[in-house]
Amino acid sequence: MVCASEFNTGQDAQLAHLAFFSCYNASMYTLKVRSRAREELVEFTDQVQEKLADSGEREGLVFLYVQHTTAGLTVNENADPDVPRDMLHAFRTLIPQHGMGFRHGEENSDAHIKATLVGSSVTVPFKDGKLLLGRWQGIFLCEFDGGRERQVIMMLR
Amino acid sequence: MVCASEFNTGQDAQLAHLAFFSCYNASMYTLKVRSRAREELVEFTDQVQEKLADSGEREGLVFLYVQHTTAGLTVNENADPDVPRDMLHAFRTLIPQHGMGFRHGEENSDAHIKATLVGSSVTVPFKDGKLLLGRWQGIFLCEFDGGRERQVIMMLR
Amino acid sequence: MVCASEFNTGQDAQLAHLAFFSCYNASMYTLKVRSRAREELVEFTDQVQEKLADSGEREGLVFLYVQHTTAGLTVNENADPDVPRDMLHAFRTLIPQHGMGFRHGEENSDAHIKATLVGSSVTVPFKDGKLLLGRWQGIFLCEFDGGRERQVIMMLR
Repeated sequence: MVCASEFNTGQDAQLAHLAFFSCYNASMYTLKVRSRAREELVEFTDQVQEKLADSGEREGLVFLYVQHTTAGLTVNENADPDVPRDMLHAFRTLIPQHGMGFRHGEENSDAHIKATLVGSSVTVPFKDGKLLLGRWQGIFLCEFDGGRERQVIMMLR
Repeated sequence: MVCASEFNTGQDAQLAHLAFFSCYNASMYTLKVRSRAREELVEFTDQVQEKLADSGEREGLVFLYVQHTTAGLTVNENADPDVPRDMLHAFRTLIPQHGMGFRHGEENSDAHIKATLVGSSVTVPFKDGKLLLGRWQGIFLCEFDGGRERQVIMMLR
Repeated sequence: MVCASEFNTGQDAQLAHLAFFSCYNASMYTLKVRSRAREELVEFTDQVQEKLADSGEREGLVFLYVQHTTAGLTVNENADPDVPRDMLHAFRTLIPQHGMGFRHGEENSDAHIKATLVGSSVTVPFKDGKLLLGRWQGIFLCEFDGGRERQVIMMLR
């Protein structure tokens, strides 16, 4: 986080040090995450860690936000690819694309619902410039209506 | 975000400029969102954008928090009303009010569960004083045990 | 939040008050939350409120993050123990440990999926040093593969 300062350096500046500060966080990024299938969990932890390193920030929160209504974000296991596979399988079983009587004409109501269940944002703390992820944790885009390029806003706080 | 400053303007102020700053965010609001049915997705994006404009803040995060246990918050499509309709239909199919063997006496366990699945908060980034929502995104209160007036805390960071 | 300041007190310091500020939040804690059963909602609101009191912070956001992939965090009712019981019952009904054709070898895919549905973090606003929880709200660790000691990062912003 950076605080820019503007000093009133008028005629009595030496005696009356009036200061106006505006604190802001200069670190905002737009990440691109590419999915290849209609439903896919795409890990992009490395991209987040790289931008965090670029920022020079040492401690705080990484906030990620997906600007789409048929994709979400989550933190989960990144070691065994069967975990994301099983997750998508369970979501598909509970909320199939067809057969639940959906009315929305684009045949992707299931994707909208899964996006809300997973959520449009994740927040991860960091310290000493490193994401404080647990040993098995990775950050995933949850694609429910791909393959597409998706846009994720990243802010540091 | 605002930084208030207090300068030590003691006798050697011209030489020793000791400064104590406290950075705080003055922008906190309580929003009222009214639902009319037991289950309803009520969009309140405009109310959030208005408070954001009032705040004068240019860049950061809008954090929204619902102070209830049978309602949640989500970001999803606000163009076709069939999307919220299909979502509530799917939730009702998966977790019906009756028939799952719930014990909680108020007959609203389904509402508590849906609230946890959706989540009690959403965070949306903003820039140049505007919410960075995707083209089809709106902010919704997810009512699962209404109609009622619900209270949402809004903070800027 | 604290702003540390470094003044350039070079030879023209009385005239040119160049200031470099770095704003940071010193309040970060690691909480331990113990579960006793495979599936359990463990309330730890008091632990969060205690750390918040220790911090001396008056207004902002408490951010909580679980560093595990088979446990989550939620805010829900803490008055009637039948609410958490019904919630775990519904999750178990929808996503049973066995019988959905999961491939992940550790027999805990259900726990990974529930963790993503609930989410790995919660954020709660506070004012005058007190969590702005609604009347019936408590903060819970959602254990889906216990009993274990779980680690929760707490940051104030």
